[in-house]
Amino acid sequence: MISDMKTLSALHPNQLNFSGGPGVLPEVVLRQLQESIIAVPEVGLSILGISHRSDWFASVVNELKDNIRRLMGLSDEYHVLFLQGGATQQFSMVPMSLLAGKTQPADYLHTGYWSGKSLPEARREGPIRVAWSGESDGFRRLPDEHDLELSEDAPYLHYISNETVEGLQFHQVMGLDGVPRVCDMSSDFLSRPFDFDRFSVIYAHAQKNIGPSGVTVVLVKDEILHEAPTDMPGFLNYRTQIEANSIYNTPPVFAIYSVLLVSRWLRDEIGGLEAMDCINTAKADLLYREIDRNPEFYRATVSSCNRSKMNVSFRLSSVELERDFLSAARAGGFSGLDGHRSVGGIRASLYNGMQIQAVENLVDFMQDFQSHRTKNRAA
Amino acid sequence: MISDMKTLSALHPNQLNFSGGPGVLPEVVLRQLQESIIAVPEVGLSILGISHRSDWFASVVNELKDNIRRLMGLSDEYHVLFLQGGATQQFSMVPMSLLAGKTQPADYLHTGYWSGKSLPEARREGPIRVAWSGESDGFRRLPDEHDLELSEDAPYLHYISNETVEGLQFHQVMGLDGVPRVCDMSSDFLSRPFDFDRFSVIYAHAQKNIGPSGVTVVLVKDEILHEAPTDMPGFLNYRTQIEANSIYNTPPVFAIYSVLLVSRWLRDEIGGLEAMDCINTAKADLLYREIDRNPEFYRATVSSCNRSKMNVSFRLSSVELERDFLSAARAGGFSGLDGHRSVGGIRASLYNGMQIQAVENLVDFMQDFQSHRTKNRAA
Repeated sequence: MISDMKTLSALHPNQLNFSGGPGVLPEVVLRQLQESIIAVPEVGLSILGISHRSDWFASVVNELKDNIRRLMGLSDEYHVLFLQGGATQQFSMVPMSLLAGKTQPADYLHTGYWSGKSLPEARREGPIRVAWSGESDGFRRLPDEHDLELSEDAPYLHYISNETVEGLQFHQVMGLDGVPRVCDMSSDFLSRPFDFDRFSVIYAHAQKNIGPSGVTVVLVKDEILHEAPTDMPGFLNYRTQIEANSIYNTPPVFAIYSVLLVSRWLRDEIGGLEAMDCINTAKADLLYREIDRNPEFYRATVSSCNRSKMNVSFRLSSVELERDFLSAARAGGFSGLDGHRSVGGIRASLYNGMQIQAVENLVDFMQDFQSHRTKNRAA
Repeated sequence: MISDMKTLSALHPNQLNFSGGPGVLPEVVLRQLQESIIAVPEVGLSILGISHRSDWFASVVNELKDNIRRLMGLSDEYHVLFLQGGATQQFSMVPMSLLAGKTQPADYLHTGYWSGKSLPEARREGPIRVAWSGESDGFRRLPDEHDLELSEDAPYLHYISNETVEGLQFHQVMGLDGVPRVCDMSSDFLSRPFDFDRFSVIYAHAQKNIGPSGVTVVLVKDEILHEAPTDMPGFLNYRTQIEANSIYNTPPVFAIYSVLLVSRWLRDEIGGLEAMDCINTAKADLLYREIDRNPEFYRATVSSCNRSKMNVSFRLSSVELERDFLSAARAGGFSGLDGHRSVGGIRASLYNGMQIQAVENLVDFMQDFQSHRTKNRAA
């Protein structure tokens, strides 16, 4: 069946990697990283052997902090940290700092797989209240303002801007202006402009849009830490990490340098978050249009107004057909299209590093697959 | 002065990097890593975009566990974990699991800068007793068995096998056989054979001997976790990490793959830990011999029976002369020779990845430097 399909345009397999994460990185960044394994141009040493206490690495950290603040339009009221442990570690660090000793519960939104993971970690540290859950509905939609009964006394509101597994994304800022917003933006970080200054804490692991796994960016507004406890291990204490400028102990140098290169690419090649959003919107529109064109064959899984531009989830009419689709896709050079193990189906992740040509190729493949299947059934 | 010195043999600047860490990696490993940035040969995708849930990555983790156990001669009573957060995170994780709720204090040895860092982190989690401290003596020697009064009831004994900053290394196993031994082997991990099976917990961050920063290897004997508490964040819980085979959340894929390549190099190119120790001993002997040959000019800083084969610390007669030495060394292509910021002086780190030719070059440089200085003074 594959043999008589249209020939795909020549993209490297990396460019046809639709994985939910770690995701594809821009090719120019991969080339720079490749060079840096033997020698970072301005240092002459392998990135893997440069001291994290060197002046050069201090300049990497400082430029990256600056690039991120500028891209997001944030002032230096926001500390920028580069930590280890992923978003999972933030599930604990946030309540350790902001919930310990509190009697009023923090509000949490339960909008999918990953926000579900944040709940038990928060409960271990202090009182929380699930202000909305989409669980009984199978996480097919997100709440809007009217669905929520938020507490004005909550220490903070925690939610996830983009649910990677289900393919749900908030397109507006949630919450009350009097309550600090804490947001896990792991899977749509630096993918679009947003009112970032309405949040008190934003965190994102790197391995979707901005780098390899191994580093997590945390933005913390200074004022929210005023009452934070101090008697905790240093690596879990935002203040300690802030004072150490993210070098409390040896940081993941290679991962941080990778994020620096991606931030430069975003700034210089793409031209900032509005331009990035424009590209990301075009990619997502292309794919959703193909799905909607064929509602009998490809079925979108979430409410149309909550669709994610990062993770496009859809199903076919049977698990067997989905298996055939994935196997034909692999044979066609695509990878990472399997839905998350918890939900199955198909998921195409369209992170910043993915080019629109890859999505065009995928759409071509989907049309060919459908037409062959429909012909075969008719024959 | 430099111009009339002997010409050094042609080594890449990476090979003349004597940094205390991150340290130099074998050139063959750097070449393989460079290739993997675009495509891991057996997968065809960038190492930075391969899913941590893929079969391939599961095989990376499993082969690496196996390689480490075999190199160290350990049975599968020992779990092998690949965690984030460095040795610093282990300073807390060890007492969180082994000290919480205990009334008898754990014994800690305070033998230098890094073991000093482990003490406050442990005290936060439970009772400890400093069974020996070299602080008043300026950390110039290590205790021997007779110096120690260890408790037979201690939940465990914690010490550091090699003090990176001072250049002190234990050449024998410390402690009582009835008390579990917990050892930070960060800066001499996989550098020599040892009675590893006399330890209950061994941990080591990668960035000295076995890889880039961003991953920490932890070996835990199953029996020591039988009484460990379970109500802690999953990422800090050894049991949770064991059950998840180190993929509790997205691991640092690139760093773990790097360690795999180094473990293969150790096994196949070097031939195991005895052969590695033989090379490391030759490197250290060469350098210590040069220092001892010139006790008026170069001064060793620690007791001769506790000298580290990994970190060779020495001083010159004045801070000015040390500054000149470092500046001439930099001009000669050497890097990373500055002593740790807490102690000053000179430190040459000779980790696994460093070739003996680099140490020969350093010795040549030291002889030239001394002879020029002595001549100049005589003139």
